[in-house]
Amino acid sequence: MILPNDFDAYCFDLDGTIYLGDKLLPGVKETIQIIRKTGKKVLFITNSPTLTREEGKMRLQQLGIAAELEEILTAPYLAGLYFSVFEPDATVFIIGEEAIRTELRNFSIQTTVDPMKATHVLAGMDRSFTYNDLQFAMDAVRNCRNFIITNPDSSCPVPGGFIPDTLSLAKAIEVASGQKISKVIGKPDTFYSDQMVGLLDVDRQKILVIGDRLDTDVQLGKAQGFATCLVLTGISSEADVESTGIRPDYVIENMTNLFCSIDEDAMVEGRDGGLVGSCQPDPLNEELLG
Amino acid sequence: MILPNDFDAYCFDLDGTIYLGDKLLPGVKETIQIIRKTGKKVLFITNSPTLTREEGKMRLQQLGIAAELEEILTAPYLAGLYFSVFEPDATVFIIGEEAIRTELRNFSIQTTVDPMKATHVLAGMDRSFTYNDLQFAMDAVRNCRNFIITNPDSSCPVPGGFIPDTLSLAKAIEVASGQKISKVIGKPDTFYSDQMVGLLDVDRQKILVIGDRLDTDVQLGKAQGFATCLVLTGISSEADVESTGIRPDYVIENMTNLFCSIDEDAMVEGRDGGLVGSCQPDPLNEELLG
Repeated sequence: MILPNDFDAYCFDLDGTIYLGDKLLPGVKETIQIIRKTGKKVLFITNSPTLTREEGKMRLQQLGIAAELEEILTAPYLAGLYFSVFEPDATVFIIGEEAIRTELRNFSIQTTVDPMKATHVLAGMDRSFTYNDLQFAMDAVRNCRNFIITNPDSSCPVPGGFIPDTLSLAKAIEVASGQKISKVIGKPDTFYSDQMVGLLDVDRQKILVIGDRLDTDVQLGKAQGFATCLVLTGISSEADVESTGIRPDYVIENMTNLFCSIDEDAMVEGRDGGLVGSCQPDPLNEELLG
Repeated sequence: MILPNDFDAYCFDLDGTIYLGDKLLPGVKETIQIIRKTGKKVLFITNSPTLTREEGKMRLQQLGIAAELEEILTAPYLAGLYFSVFEPDATVFIIGEEAIRTELRNFSIQTTVDPMKATHVLAGMDRSFTYNDLQFAMDAVRNCRNFIITNPDSSCPVPGGFIPDTLSLAKAIEVASGQKISKVIGKPDTFYSDQMVGLLDVDRQKILVIGDRLDTDVQLGKAQGFATCLVLTGISSEADVESTGIRPDYVIENMTNLFCSIDEDAMVEGRDGGLVGSCQPDPLNEELLG
């Protein structure tokens, strides 16, 4: 089981972890309250390619979760930061929604709608994507230096199912153009974790990453020496833990189970070889919630 | 060099081999004339997912090439045939253009626009493809028994460049749904070559396949014991022969070089280890053309 003092920083994915569509997931509000009350750090880390940092803050606020701008990392923000650090002179052709354009503008990165003028193509999920966009992106990728994508997610959890995410559109562009994706910006890339560590300024082993995806959230934690917790409210299932071999330190059914006593009847192997899982609220945490 | 009597049947790809957009490619008309005059068999074999057999015949006719319906194989026709042979009771959700719907109707295969009612998903190039189609296809593939595609082409040659073809859209669906493509109907699949052999009724080694793609046309020929000729007017280049290791028996610059004397200055390794390539018209063929 986890007690709030076990870690110095708690990093939460958003879609499928904090909320699903426009609904907070169970136990999220109480969990954040406990962390805030114990004075631990919080970071919201999403690969969503359709959110600016500002929009992420507003979205959380609307759901009753207060957060500072500096407590939020989104894929479009990271993409803007990436170009400003490594490719400040790029001219970028974008497949993606407004959030990507906004964050690149915030970092003063030049963009173009002419496939033949692009030095880089940046692709993220685009819910208005068409065959013509695919054609333009194909031409741009064949013509440019680097094909970069905001995040490696194949689908995104929404109420009642999933919607196609960045990797799905990116693979269409990759196959049509015959050119490989050269860089993936979002989790689990080290560019993402480096920003997390920079913002948090605590020991890596005192960071807990909580997310619904094994291949992004948990993978990032494992590669970076963070502790990891899979929450089963989004993409990945307990069966996926077996089939992928990506083993988080903790697996919880939903966020009400993050800080709680162990239920002996529903457990999986935890960080130290011990067992964790679906459980009862801990009296200590009950007290913190008041 | 090839003489018209060297083979009993000549099988021509269409896009990038016979025509590009609405223009016949050089030497095509004369080459077909020679074959017709010598009484050899002709088959037009295209992976184009946007042509019915009837439309293929009309398209050739408009360009001055006469052909019987039985001399034309297209991916939508083959898809209809495939379902009628192997999955006659299927209910098919289609991503693709009208040609696919028409050929499935010709074979009395049931189709649906409801992703949840499909037993099979059939995908082909669709120039009106949108993110919503991707979403529907993703749901249908997650729900159905088999995900089938009309052809494995990643792009299609058009005047001035290329457009995204079936495999590009199919990969987006594959990644979003997390389900693999289970069957590819077009060249180089054996279902395609079996139809060719059935229609031609000649020895395999007396069949010459002429096409612009190493991975479909030439690959099909090599797997099936047909002779193969790559024409450099479409997708694949001479450099691709080196990089892929798929070695056609003949490589010609364009169709004017199919029946001709060797030009010693521009040659590549041919079928028997000899050299063929860019060349001068043969007096015998000149005579046949009258």
